Amino acid sequence: MNKDRDLEFLKMTIKMAEENVLSGHGGPFAAIIVKDGEIIATGVNSVTSELDPTAHAEIKAIRNACKTLDSYQLTDCDIYSSCEPCPMCLGAIYWSRPKRIVFAANKRDAAQAGFDDSFIYEQLKLPINQRKIETIEIMLDDKTLPFQKWNNYNSKIDY
Amino acid sequence: MNKDRDLEFLKMTIKMAEENVLSGHGGPFAAIIVKDGEIIATGVNSVTSELDPTAHAEIKAIRNACKTLDSYQLTDCDIYSSCEPCPMCLGAIYWSRPKRIVFAANKRDAAQAGFDDSFIYEQLKLPINQRKIETIEIMLDDKTLPFQKWNNYNSKIDY
Repeated sequence: MNKDRDLEFLKMTIKMAEENVLSGHGGPFAAIIVKDGEIIATGVNSVTSELDPTAHAEIKAIRNACKTLDSYQLTDCDIYSSCEPCPMCLGAIYWSRPKRIVFAANKRDAAQAGFDDSFIYEQLKLPINQRKIETIEIMLDDKTLPFQKWNNYNSKIDY
Repeated sequence: MNKDRDLEFLKMTIKMAEENVLSGHGGPFAAIIVKDGEIIATGVNSVTSELDPTAHAEIKAIRNACKTLDSYQLTDCDIYSSCEPCPMCLGAIYWSRPKRIVFAANKRDAAQAGFDDSFIYEQLKLPINQRKIETIEIMLDDKTLPFQKWNNYNSKIDY
């Protein structure tokens, strides 16, 4: 992918993010997914309009791209985002395994605009007993039974 | 929430996770969301059956709970998960702001069963130029324009 095309796609996400705010649809974020030089999916933040806290731009774009490709993997795809992905979206990106991530604003810019991205990055680094949301690990004897079932299941589809 | 109820709900997630494997629906994970002592939503991993890499148990349960509550926030809710949430799901949990998270298996158990949870936790801690998925920050002059629009937008709904 050449630098000009990167800039072109990234500027499109900025424009889409601005329009998403002005339409009242959701937060100031947008993402585009590109494969073989073609846009295969887009996504904009729609947390408040869809009442879905997971409806971030990248998550929406990943879901849309997977529908387009009829796959749960984004092999050889590039993800362009108007802003550095938050931990939720970065996790989703790793699970979908694209080739590259390109972004414009970073998590410090997002924090300055009032978004929790940096806070959540910091929380993930902490031991669970130091996190702001109370987090409890309960040791159950059968806690790994689902994994045992999984490993013994002959028809399983790895993901 | 008392300890017996915690155990009861957590054991339910283990059972659901096992059934999810044996039904061929998806990976060995399940989650339950409880408010005021009542189950308001459940979720099981359906990545491969729905062709959606974001369809983890907690994400599904959060989306279902938000539909039930007609809200993008899970105020005063407890999330029970058969396994420690991966970074994507933990991010989603932070954005939905429940009261507590209770889990059984941990990320090391998940890694032993072949899942990328621990790997993704490690990747998130790295500077972006050291990550396995190529990640590029491009400095655009107008990168914070969406945030400026957001801050000036009088009808915005914070989330």
